[in-house]
Amino acid sequence: MTLNPADESFATHLRGLLPAEVLRPVEPRYLAEPRGRWTGQAGVLALPRTTEEVATLIRAASARRVAVLPYGGGTGLVGGQVMPDGPAPLVISLERMNRIRGVYPQENVVVAEAGCILADIQDAAGDVNRLFPLSLASEGSCRIGGNLATNAGGVGVLRYGNARDLCLGLEVVLPSGEIWNGLTRLRKDNTGYDLRNLLIGSEGTLGIITAAALKLSPMPSSLGTALLAVRNPQAALDILALARGQIGECISAFELIHRQSFDFLAETLPHLRQPLDPVPEWSVLVELGLSGGLDAVTALETLFEAAVEAELASDGVVAQSEAQRAALWSLREHIPEANRRIGSISSHDVSLPLSELPAFIRRGQEMVAAAGSYRINCFGHLGDGNLHYNLFPPKGRNRSDYADQATGLKRLVHDLVHAYGGSVSAEHGIGRFKTGDLQRYGDPAKLAAMRAIKTALDPFGIMNPGAVLA
Amino acid sequence: MTLNPADESFATHLRGLLPAEVLRPVEPRYLAEPRGRWTGQAGVLALPRTTEEVATLIRAASARRVAVLPYGGGTGLVGGQVMPDGPAPLVISLERMNRIRGVYPQENVVVAEAGCILADIQDAAGDVNRLFPLSLASEGSCRIGGNLATNAGGVGVLRYGNARDLCLGLEVVLPSGEIWNGLTRLRKDNTGYDLRNLLIGSEGTLGIITAAALKLSPMPSSLGTALLAVRNPQAALDILALARGQIGECISAFELIHRQSFDFLAETLPHLRQPLDPVPEWSVLVELGLSGGLDAVTALETLFEAAVEAELASDGVVAQSEAQRAALWSLREHIPEANRRIGSISSHDVSLPLSELPAFIRRGQEMVAAAGSYRINCFGHLGDGNLHYNLFPPKGRNRSDYADQATGLKRLVHDLVHAYGGSVSAEHGIGRFKTGDLQRYGDPAKLAAMRAIKTALDPFGIMNPGAVLA
Repeated sequence: MTLNPADESFATHLRGLLPAEVLRPVEPRYLAEPRGRWTGQAGVLALPRTTEEVATLIRAASARRVAVLPYGGGTGLVGGQVMPDGPAPLVISLERMNRIRGVYPQENVVVAEAGCILADIQDAAGDVNRLFPLSLASEGSCRIGGNLATNAGGVGVLRYGNARDLCLGLEVVLPSGEIWNGLTRLRKDNTGYDLRNLLIGSEGTLGIITAAALKLSPMPSSLGTALLAVRNPQAALDILALARGQIGECISAFELIHRQSFDFLAETLPHLRQPLDPVPEWSVLVELGLSGGLDAVTALETLFEAAVEAELASDGVVAQSEAQRAALWSLREHIPEANRRIGSISSHDVSLPLSELPAFIRRGQEMVAAAGSYRINCFGHLGDGNLHYNLFPPKGRNRSDYADQATGLKRLVHDLVHAYGGSVSAEHGIGRFKTGDLQRYGDPAKLAAMRAIKTALDPFGIMNPGAVLA
Repeated sequence: MTLNPADESFATHLRGLLPAEVLRPVEPRYLAEPRGRWTGQAGVLALPRTTEEVATLIRAASARRVAVLPYGGGTGLVGGQVMPDGPAPLVISLERMNRIRGVYPQENVVVAEAGCILADIQDAAGDVNRLFPLSLASEGSCRIGGNLATNAGGVGVLRYGNARDLCLGLEVVLPSGEIWNGLTRLRKDNTGYDLRNLLIGSEGTLGIITAAALKLSPMPSSLGTALLAVRNPQAALDILALARGQIGECISAFELIHRQSFDFLAETLPHLRQPLDPVPEWSVLVELGLSGGLDAVTALETLFEAAVEAELASDGVVAQSEAQRAALWSLREHIPEANRRIGSISSHDVSLPLSELPAFIRRGQEMVAAAGSYRINCFGHLGDGNLHYNLFPPKGRNRSDYADQATGLKRLVHDLVHAYGGSVSAEHGIGRFKTGDLQRYGDPAKLAAMRAIKTALDPFGIMNPGAVLA
């Protein structure tokens, strides 16, 4: 399908349809993405304030066969938000649709427009003593529409699920320009196909999410965090099983950290105090959120003792204050920044079946060592089987010297993940960066069904062309 | 699209493709459904034992344009499993694909074939001290493929979600006859459109589920059940909020019961002992499943005291033994049987936003009273906003005298549900019974998208024609 550029004639057409202030000059920030791999282009930038305005934009783009690029917070890591080639698109940023439409504490629901910043939704929930549990590094700038379009993950997935699991209803402008009002606050609704989950995770290729009804959870009354030195990844999983046996579903986070992370932190961010000495090869950051009068610190101490008793853990620290909790989390949250400062050759967002994870880590170490002298930083959301598995040059060398090895290393890691039944995109999505991986590793029947659905809902191919299905 | 019957020529064709024992004589049980509204037809009955055999059947049906009716446990309540008219279909029962393919306690996953009976999956989980929390009245005979195809609900949804929320991966034969191997055990996998949730709840119209990877939960160490007499439905919701404040997410069930249920039980099943005297107009059955050393009976007693203190509850009983727990649940579980014996004029499976629920119940009582002298039995999964709202003739009269009023009463109830932002099919699905409701109440943009998806994935319309989209 040949698309037309969003050129001056198209802009003039839109000016006749919409209030003057909806169309804006294109600023560079709409053309950038956090990893600096691509620079996008935009023929026209629109900042609609209502769902009707979004629908008007999409109808016009559909009629003129102009590509549409939905833009949320711009924090995505796979290039879904920038279109570097092809006819210049109409970029629609949802940033002015940032109203909380309603908070329903008794229902544990908040209805938010797509442009709401994630942290603002967390705050709106906190104001009524509820928790909106989606939590990720970019929560201060990412927007809920983008979180849903990419089915964002983060640190709370183990207990509360992905963005998908936190959404009850959607309002969406479909590629036809029709508005689907699916903004229900219902916990059960079996009236037809699950369009909601089809749109969630479709990365702007099947429509633009304009608002969502989101699930809230009770705020745990007692939070506790611990960092435990564990014998190896299998011991970490055994501690997770132990914790589940002791306290059920109330494990809010369970993060694996390799020593490489602490070394990078020490090298690049030396002001961050590291609590375990010696630094263990493997450790886990555990967070509990308890209710019913239970004390999370006590529960963590009990867990720690049991883990030491079972020779799964050798050292550890249980935060005794809010400041200590924050300090432990700060270590975990600064790992991506430390990685950025060191400079990775190749970085991977992968997931494995939990019981395959220790073998994958062992085999990965062997295969990477056989491939050359690299440093592996392997950390992430162990409870979900989700590892951020990043490869770095040896100390003293620069990533730029290894540019020609990036593709081969990526292939090595992804092939291994696939062999263990894993996914080469756990939480970041496909965007433009992983379209080749999707073709290589995706199930052929699923890919055929995806193409059929894309063509059925977006026959002119205007929605975020080049993303997901290149 | 004109379909051909599954006639003797088609049967002969299939005999050449498959082992002899796959094709069976059609027995009457495959043509019946629990409410006796419809009698189905079957040109050919196939009982495949492997996914490949299912694929062979579908490919043959696709090539010859023969309708396919997937058959699970046959327990659905909306006629999705019987095809009363049109060319006689190929009925594919999954009952012999009833193998548990794997149990992964450390991953909290079980992989089961579609023909596994729900209770057998619960048992397989229990054998490794895990909980498979999908629980509904027909669990002894319904099959997991049907549970997923209809996104079954039941009593555990408040805590654990619908069938959809308990599924990590699917193996499906698509209408083309291709096998989609999406049987992953991953918690995070953002590689393309969410085909899994599209298939779940599509009621056999987009493919046949042949196996599923299912989530298990930790087994709570302390269970407790109470029956509380509450002032009114709003008080019931207030107690739910109170319970959440006290014990977080560990409320496993929260069922509303109107006095009419107890009256029907007393009339039709007098051997069931009723613990509250006088019988309250409204009551709730609460179940807690706690871990971390907490005692559920103590927690329920604390909740009961707080509810009485706040004048939300006036009476109640907390089960002090497993036998008492079972007796309380037996009351709840026998309500459908009591209803059946009394004989409803019209029955409804509806859901409402939680905060609209009390107003809906009040207004419903007024409108039904204005329409005539009926008895309302209103009960169900209050925590999910899901009510089973059934209308009966006055005492001494028979439902057969009211047959001409059923349609009008259904319309009255469904219009009211729709006006309050609710759903006219909370957990039973659309099947053949509610296709008119879907057209009447469904969002037009969603319906158009559903039709486009159906045509894209099933261009010849062979999969369960007449269900969902009539």
